[in-house]
Amino acid sequence: MSETTKMTISALQARVEAIFCKAGLNAVQAGALARVIVAGERDACKSHGVYRIEGALRTVKAGKVKADAIPELVEQAGSAIVRVNANGGFANPAFELGVPVLAERARSCGLAALVVNDCTHFSALWPEVEALTDQGLAGLVMCPSYATVAPTGGNKPLLGTNPFAFGWPRPGKSPYVFDFATSVAARGEIELHRRAGKQLPEGWAIDADGNPTTEPEAALAGAMLPFGGHKGSAIGTMIELLAGIMIGDLTSPEVLDYLGTTTLAPFHGELILAFSPEAFAAGRPGDPFGRAEVLFEAIVGQGARLPSQRRYVARAKSESDGIELTAAEMAQLERLEALGLDAVA
Amino acid sequence: MSETTKMTISALQARVEAIFCKAGLNAVQAGALARVIVAGERDACKSHGVYRIEGALRTVKAGKVKADAIPELVEQAGSAIVRVNANGGFANPAFELGVPVLAERARSCGLAALVVNDCTHFSALWPEVEALTDQGLAGLVMCPSYATVAPTGGNKPLLGTNPFAFGWPRPGKSPYVFDFATSVAARGEIELHRRAGKQLPEGWAIDADGNPTTEPEAALAGAMLPFGGHKGSAIGTMIELLAGIMIGDLTSPEVLDYLGTTTLAPFHGELILAFSPEAFAAGRPGDPFGRAEVLFEAIVGQGARLPSQRRYVARAKSESDGIELTAAEMAQLERLEALGLDAVA
Repeated sequence: MSETTKMTISALQARVEAIFCKAGLNAVQAGALARVIVAGERDACKSHGVYRIEGALRTVKAGKVKADAIPELVEQAGSAIVRVNANGGFANPAFELGVPVLAERARSCGLAALVVNDCTHFSALWPEVEALTDQGLAGLVMCPSYATVAPTGGNKPLLGTNPFAFGWPRPGKSPYVFDFATSVAARGEIELHRRAGKQLPEGWAIDADGNPTTEPEAALAGAMLPFGGHKGSAIGTMIELLAGIMIGDLTSPEVLDYLGTTTLAPFHGELILAFSPEAFAAGRPGDPFGRAEVLFEAIVGQGARLPSQRRYVARAKSESDGIELTAAEMAQLERLEALGLDAVA
Repeated sequence: MSETTKMTISALQARVEAIFCKAGLNAVQAGALARVIVAGERDACKSHGVYRIEGALRTVKAGKVKADAIPELVEQAGSAIVRVNANGGFANPAFELGVPVLAERARSCGLAALVVNDCTHFSALWPEVEALTDQGLAGLVMCPSYATVAPTGGNKPLLGTNPFAFGWPRPGKSPYVFDFATSVAARGEIELHRRAGKQLPEGWAIDADGNPTTEPEAALAGAMLPFGGHKGSAIGTMIELLAGIMIGDLTSPEVLDYLGTTTLAPFHGELILAFSPEAFAAGRPGDPFGRAEVLFEAIVGQGARLPSQRRYVARAKSESDGIELTAAEMAQLERLEALGLDAVA
C-alpha cells in the first residue's frame, strides 16, 4: 500500500519551479509554467499536474521551445487587440504579461482580445479563463492543437482537439467556468483505454480507413471524432480559423507538420477574448452578476451541475490541507529534480 | 399534382413587404423583415421563408412587437461596443442600422460588438453573419430563445435552443458559414414528428418527469436536450450569459415568462461580434484568406462538406431561375395579402 505525501501549494510551486530552472528555463518561463502545473495538482486535474512536467522538459530537450524566451508586448495603439509575442517560449508567461493590459483594454473598450503568438502551448485553458474572471471580466479562450480529429464526414486527422473555454465572474464565489476539447474525447483518454486493454465507447474514433472503430490502436492510427457531430466539427473549424489563421499562427495540421509528433507540446498561437459585463450592461435594467446567479440557481435547482465544481472542491481541500501526491508522483518529482533534462528521452 | 410558381427575388420582396406594410409595419420594419424571409426562400430554407410571415403577424396582432418602432443607435464613444435599441420592434432593422457602424468599428479597433436590445427576434442568424462576411469581416452571432431545453443533468426547460452562428469571408466565393441550434434538434422538428405520427430519435428529449422519451407529445410537454451532452449545455448557458444577461436583456426563461407561449416570436436581445482578419493578422506571416482556403480544401478534399453549401446551390438557382413556390405557399401568400392581420388568430 503506497503512502501519500502532502505539501503546501507554495512548497510544490518552489519545487516545480526549481526543476524548470535546472532544465534551463529562465525565471519568467519557469515561474509561469510551474503555476499552471501546480494549479492542476491543486484542483485534482491530474492530467494537467506533475504528470505534465516531463512533456515540457521533452519539448525543451527537442529544441522545440525556447527555454530562455522573454515574451514581448507588441503595442497596437487605438486597437482592441493586445498582442504578445511569446518569442518561441511557452504560452504561459506571454499570457501573464498580456493579462493586465487586456483587462484594462476590456474595461475601457467594453471588449478586447489578447493574441498570443509564437508560443508552445502547454496547459489547460481554465487557469487563463480564471485570470479574467478574477478581474471581473467574462472570458472566451480557444486555440488549435495537433491534427488528430477528422471533420464530420471526413476520414483523416485534420482538426485539433481544439479546446474551447469560457468563464463568467461570480463575486464572492468561484467563477462559472467550462473548458473542453471539441473532440468527443481527449487523446489521452484513448491512450488510457489502450494501456488498460479496454474497448473505446462507440462514436469516439475512426480507423485509418475512415470506418468507426472501438479499438484504441486503430483509433490512434486513425482519427478522433468531433463532439456533437457536425456542430462540434464546425466549432473546431472556427477555432482553426480564429485562433490559428486569423491571428497569423499555425493551424493544427501545420503544427503536426512542424513537430512531426504528438509527443511534444504544440507550437501555435492562442486567442483570448475578454468582455466587461459592466460595459455591456451599462444603461440597461438589472445587475448582470445578480441576474447570472438566478440562472445558476435555476440550473442547480433542477439537479444539474455547474461545470468545474469538482475542481473547486479539490482546491478548497488543497488550500486547507495541502496538495496530496502519491508515492509514484513523489518518485517522479524526485527523479526530475535529480536528473533534470536527463530524465527525458 | 400541384403546380409551382416562379418569381424573381425582387418580386417576392415587394409582395412580402406589402403584406407587412398592410399589417401596420412601418417601412424600416417591413423592408428588413421581408429581406430575411425572402433570403430564406431564396436559399431553400423553407422553415425561414414565407412560412414565417404568419408568425410575425401573429406577434404583431398579440401586441408583443411594436410595428412602427424606429431603431436607434446609442453611441458609446471610445467603445468597441455598438448598441442599437430596437425600441420594441423586430431585430432585423436594428441589425441593419448597426452593421455599417459595427463594420467601421471592427476595422478601426480590430474587433467590435454589436448589441441589439429590446427586439423581437425572428430570423435565422446566417443572414446576419453574411452581412459581416460581405464586409470582409469574420462574425460570431448568438442569442437566447425561449426556455425549452433542459441543461444536461436537469429535467426541466430552462435554456433556449440558443442559436450560435459563425462566418468567415472567402473573397470571390460564398462565405464559410454555420448557424445551428445548441439543442439536438429544433423545436419545429419535434412538431413535425408529432404531426407525422413518428417517434423521435433517442437523445432528443425528456418527458415532464425528466425521463428520456421518443414520444413527440411527451417531448413537447417535457424538454429538449442540448446537442453534444454537457458541452452543448455549457455553450447554451454561455449564450444566456453573454447574449442575455451581459447585454442587459432577457434570458430564455424570462422570455417565456414574458410571452407565456412559444407561438409568438421571442422578445430579447442579440450579440454580434465582428473581427477584422486583416487587423488580427497584421505583421504576421501569410495571408489569412489564402490560408483559410487551404484549410477548406483539406476539409472538402477528404469528402467532408462545408456548412451552408446546400443554401448556396439553391441561391444560385433562385438568382438565375427565380424563387419557386408551391401552390400551397402561393395560396398562403395570397391569403395573407388579402386578409392581412385578419389571417391570423
